[in-house]
Amino acid sequence: MRAAIVGATGYGGAELIRLLQAHPHVKITSVISTSNAGAPIADGFPHLNQIMVDLLDELNVELIAGKADLVFLATPAGVSADLSPKLLAAGLKVIDVSGDFRLKSGALYEMWYKHKPASDEDLAKAVYGLCEVFGEEVKGVDFVSNPGCYPTASLLGLIPALKAGWIDPATIIIDAKSGVSGAGRGVGLGVHYSEVNENFSTYKVNRHQHIPEIEQALGRIAGAPVVTTFTTHLVPMTRGIMATMYATVNGAHTEEDFIALYRDFYQGRRFVRVRDKGKLPATKEVFGSNYCDIGFAVDARTGRVTIVSVIDNVVKGAAGQAIQNLNLMMGWEESTGLLFSPVYP
Amino acid sequence: MRAAIVGATGYGGAELIRLLQAHPHVKITSVISTSNAGAPIADGFPHLNQIMVDLLDELNVELIAGKADLVFLATPAGVSADLSPKLLAAGLKVIDVSGDFRLKSGALYEMWYKHKPASDEDLAKAVYGLCEVFGEEVKGVDFVSNPGCYPTASLLGLIPALKAGWIDPATIIIDAKSGVSGAGRGVGLGVHYSEVNENFSTYKVNRHQHIPEIEQALGRIAGAPVVTTFTTHLVPMTRGIMATMYATVNGAHTEEDFIALYRDFYQGRRFVRVRDKGKLPATKEVFGSNYCDIGFAVDARTGRVTIVSVIDNVVKGAAGQAIQNLNLMMGWEESTGLLFSPVYP
Amino acid sequence: MRAAIVGATGYGGAELIRLLQAHPHVKITSVISTSNAGAPIADGFPHLNQIMVDLLDELNVELIAGKADLVFLATPAGVSADLSPKLLAAGLKVIDVSGDFRLKSGALYEMWYKHKPASDEDLAKAVYGLCEVFGEEVKGVDFVSNPGCYPTASLLGLIPALKAGWIDPATIIIDAKSGVSGAGRGVGLGVHYSEVNENFSTYKVNRHQHIPEIEQALGRIAGAPVVTTFTTHLVPMTRGIMATMYATVNGAHTEEDFIALYRDFYQGRRFVRVRDKGKLPATKEVFGSNYCDIGFAVDARTGRVTIVSVIDNVVKGAAGQAIQNLNLMMGWEESTGLLFSPVYP
Amino acid sequence: MRAAIVGATGYGGAELIRLLQAHPHVKITSVISTSNAGAPIADGFPHLNQIMVDLLDELNVELIAGKADLVFLATPAGVSADLSPKLLAAGLKVIDVSGDFRLKSGALYEMWYKHKPASDEDLAKAVYGLCEVFGEEVKGVDFVSNPGCYPTASLLGLIPALKAGWIDPATIIIDAKSGVSGAGRGVGLGVHYSEVNENFSTYKVNRHQHIPEIEQALGRIAGAPVVTTFTTHLVPMTRGIMATMYATVNGAHTEEDFIALYRDFYQGRRFVRVRDKGKLPATKEVFGSNYCDIGFAVDARTGRVTIVSVIDNVVKGAAGQAIQNLNLMMGWEESTGLLFSPVYP
Repeated sequence: MRAAIVGATGYGGAELIRLLQAHPHVKITSVISTSNAGAPIADGFPHLNQIMVDLLDELNVELIAGKADLVFLATPAGVSADLSPKLLAAGLKVIDVSGDFRLKSGALYEMWYKHKPASDEDLAKAVYGLCEVFGEEVKGVDFVSNPGCYPTASLLGLIPALKAGWIDPATIIIDAKSGVSGAGRGVGLGVHYSEVNENFSTYKVNRHQHIPEIEQALGRIAGAPVVTTFTTHLVPMTRGIMATMYATVNGAHTEEDFIALYRDFYQGRRFVRVRDKGKLPATKEVFGSNYCDIGFAVDARTGRVTIVSVIDNVVKGAAGQAIQNLNLMMGWEESTGLLFSPVYP
Repeated sequence: MRAAIVGATGYGGAELIRLLQAHPHVKITSVISTSNAGAPIADGFPHLNQIMVDLLDELNVELIAGKADLVFLATPAGVSADLSPKLLAAGLKVIDVSGDFRLKSGALYEMWYKHKPASDEDLAKAVYGLCEVFGEEVKGVDFVSNPGCYPTASLLGLIPALKAGWIDPATIIIDAKSGVSGAGRGVGLGVHYSEVNENFSTYKVNRHQHIPEIEQALGRIAGAPVVTTFTTHLVPMTRGIMATMYATVNGAHTEEDFIALYRDFYQGRRFVRVRDKGKLPATKEVFGSNYCDIGFAVDARTGRVTIVSVIDNVVKGAAGQAIQNLNLMMGWEESTGLLFSPVYP
Repeated sequence: MRAAIVGATGYGGAELIRLLQAHPHVKITSVISTSNAGAPIADGFPHLNQIMVDLLDELNVELIAGKADLVFLATPAGVSADLSPKLLAAGLKVIDVSGDFRLKSGALYEMWYKHKPASDEDLAKAVYGLCEVFGEEVKGVDFVSNPGCYPTASLLGLIPALKAGWIDPATIIIDAKSGVSGAGRGVGLGVHYSEVNENFSTYKVNRHQHIPEIEQALGRIAGAPVVTTFTTHLVPMTRGIMATMYATVNGAHTEEDFIALYRDFYQGRRFVRVRDKGKLPATKEVFGSNYCDIGFAVDARTGRVTIVSVIDNVVKGAAGQAIQNLNLMMGWEESTGLLFSPVYP
Repeated sequence: MRAAIVGATGYGGAELIRLLQAHPHVKITSVISTSNAGAPIADGFPHLNQIMVDLLDELNVELIAGKADLVFLATPAGVSADLSPKLLAAGLKVIDVSGDFRLKSGALYEMWYKHKPASDEDLAKAVYGLCEVFGEEVKGVDFVSNPGCYPTASLLGLIPALKAGWIDPATIIIDAKSGVSGAGRGVGLGVHYSEVNENFSTYKVNRHQHIPEIEQALGRIAGAPVVTTFTTHLVPMTRGIMATMYATVNGAHTEEDFIALYRDFYQGRRFVRVRDKGKLPATKEVFGSNYCDIGFAVDARTGRVTIVSVIDNVVKGAAGQAIQNLNLMMGWEESTGLLFSPVYP
């Protein structure tokens, strides 16, 4: 299968290149950048010297259609809304790693993203590819909207308990932390090393565009609207997300109960690892890999469960899950090309 | 005033030395270490070359009593319980930076600290020195128990709202994050650079010994027992604590209301800085200083307030507040010797 | 091929596990630890959960001989000197990742390593596996001594120029820098996060055990003894080595000349990437990969060349090159199982 | 004394504010920024909340002359060349922290800085304020050019040996490493956290504008032109410079000899600390302070001395030395306001 990557000069694009190099059924036939077309990709990403020698293509739907069967869109918000329908019309399969097709409501998109939304018709076409939860819906389709990094970590950690009715949706609080790569490769004071290093800060508190995405999926599971408190912090590290989540437990479920529930829910899925009792995961334990690791602490004193979920934001939170979705779309084993170990230390 | 520092080879001790060098009324006359007595302190802390040339003294109450008027105890848990009463009996003033005298209940101490507690009589003597809240009680006393780092950040961020009845005590959740220096200078895999760097992890979830300290102070303010969820995370940085705190708001208070309430509560206190609307503090903005910076986000969607409080754990969370307590004890202006700017970047 | 790993609870062992998971011709059949035998390896390395479920074996030559055809020794200095001959005698192939068989002189080993050396006879048997230089000698042998991390970066950067007579051996100065993982997983103040973070320091200046290893190989190429100045620095990062090397140029060779010389020397070798004129490599550009990237700056003002060589110390400097040596031993393509991209960012 | 700071929104300016807060004889009466005039300085530097409440002034010579007696210029290259003469003409004292007046040759400045130089007449007026070497010349003057960060570390480490004739000037190699704050607060991919973190890289090899500054001072000491190899590396940390310097020793001087020579040379100077035999300084040991720490390793095998010199680039390499120069200009004790301890850890 021939794949094109739009946005190849960003971190998501670079990670798609790294991972697809190891995929047995996919060949990258075009790497596309609106700003550096004509230049070797290794000019901007020297780690790709002698690995990816292609010149960057310009963004041109016909050109892509001639070179590829599938397109990954690793583009900033606002690009895919317009571009994806054109690519689909040209007969290409599309996996959109941006946020443009995650929300089913264009009005909600516009409110949180401050961009013009895609049409309701196009929004309806995109399948939300949270693989371990909605993966069945991805099989055989042509257009997948890849989940956001925070939603992936949060939803995989909350959904089994929510679905089982074990936690009170009204009490859910998500305290999330991310490495800096989540902000992308664009420059700015917010990603300046001297400002971020030896610093821990918040950003977009109560205003992050992943909030409606999380609530949409939780609401779908709960069968009723769910409103959550969601806070985002910037950690002085490059990769990794941890979502520390709190909810009041309905009933008297223990840590062992939660572990059993989640292991049953994720039965047969390679990329969710539910930790043993008393063990909570750390971000480095999934660094560079497609795993989402989850652990639990139930506190009898407060009646709350603390759920800790970690992913590598660039892999399971972006490029890795995108390839996992490709595998599901094509009917391949979902772990094809993704069974590499985390890099440790 | 002549001061001795017990535990001078730990980070808390080293910071006391740094800060007291700049104090106009105090002279360090003895630095004490149980393990390296007789060696120059700069052997273990080369940054002190030519700044502190004293040899380390052994731990000996009579020796201390001959050399000093006041003792700072920057010792591991379990040491001060036994040592402080002896120092007090020898006529010394004592500021205990360890956790041994923070809890008024010996039984509670034993449960959380797994050490033998001091006697109830001695526990009753120690004044809990959370300066901006209980500072009046410190004036003129001989024995102060310096608050823990997490409790300092958490309590300064919660107490004004709790006291005003603006937040529901039953809903308080504290998601706390600390730099690695909080773990002290002892070696172990948990502080190994290759394990901590580019990693974000939890530790002691629901089991941290600062939980009862926080609840004791909150309960005192609320006039009734308060039970909280408190989670501790390790951030890949050396200094700094952030407590991100959640609670349901009683009534319809806005961010402006919270800011006004806190500015009124902390009126005249130099070291608590309440941020303007829309500004949340980051740890680096207090690095190396005695400030505690606090900001608010109120979310109408959820009815919750998010309170963010940051300190430098080694300064306001330990050595700095200890000196602030000394100033209060002695009747000096509380900011004496502590009015230095954060180090930025 | 069945492989055993001795020292599986160290960083070198863990990296061998990560890399061998992806090797098409090798299956790990025993992971061995002297200290944690009987425990699941994921207890100490949670990133290996569900990836490597084996229990750790004790160290027992007969047991290994029954389970494996090949042994990787990722052991501290002093272990392999005694162990390797026994493993060889039991019919196993051995790749020693430790320093015990790198020096051909037992006396020199003892002087720099402060351990009892292997016998001269055993030292003579070990083939020094610097793949791109001495790889021909590795083919078909049973016992390879894998080069050290610093020597790999330094020698690959110096040998082509030295062999061509373009640099004066008497003027070689190697200023080397390493991430902290090079120190291994053992605990100590030297790897304490709070001591290493936001710090840059030297260690073992003029005393590092890699000095005689570098000089032995340079001397072999030069045909006469070479003495070098070699300095080691600790960088606040986990992985990566840079060797910045200085030498006086014999004659008037330009940067273009050096590039051409090195590209010719490393013709056909996948893992050495010689950079274009004006481009010097950074450690992150080889992070997690088996590449060694080399660049040049020639200064007409001083008549010196500056050669910059970077590797990932845990991969090309240890586990990766060990597998590359295995490939050469077995007659497989040297890049088998090793053609993964660096992880960036 | 009333001081103005031009460039107050950069790191050098912010550090001047931090340090001058503690200076007994100086009051900051104007903080100046060309880009943010009219805004509170704490808008861009929240750590200064309630510490420095002044609004930023625009850059206007008459305005400065009305408010201040002395001006610190913490401006990018190319600004001071034009501005300083005007400030001097307005009767102000000037300490230029930029590079515009360090080189005595305008042609050399233009070649390395790519900016239009000041006139030869104005260049001749500026006194090069390397305090511990040329401090006598600073006393009583009105115009000081503050040395660069790399030159400060390098020159303090080389000059005593060079002056004594103990090292061969033709063999000097300076391998320098700097934290990221040295690049200033401007944004760009080169200071993007995700690019710098867990990375070690070179920059401006053989092209750094500090090369002629170092050679000018060395040549003045040697009494003949000196040409050096100087390499700059970027360390993933915020503050700190280490210069690792190599030279062939003339004669048979030992480490003890070097230590004695340097201690004699720097006799009575508080800010240069010469380490004991066998101890080399690390950058963290001077973090946040005005110290320059120097250590030695002499290698009998190679006949070379390795000199290691460390400073905090923002303090001794910029704002701290600028204040030290102010003290010398005014006839105050040179350590006035600067005797604070390094921040450790």
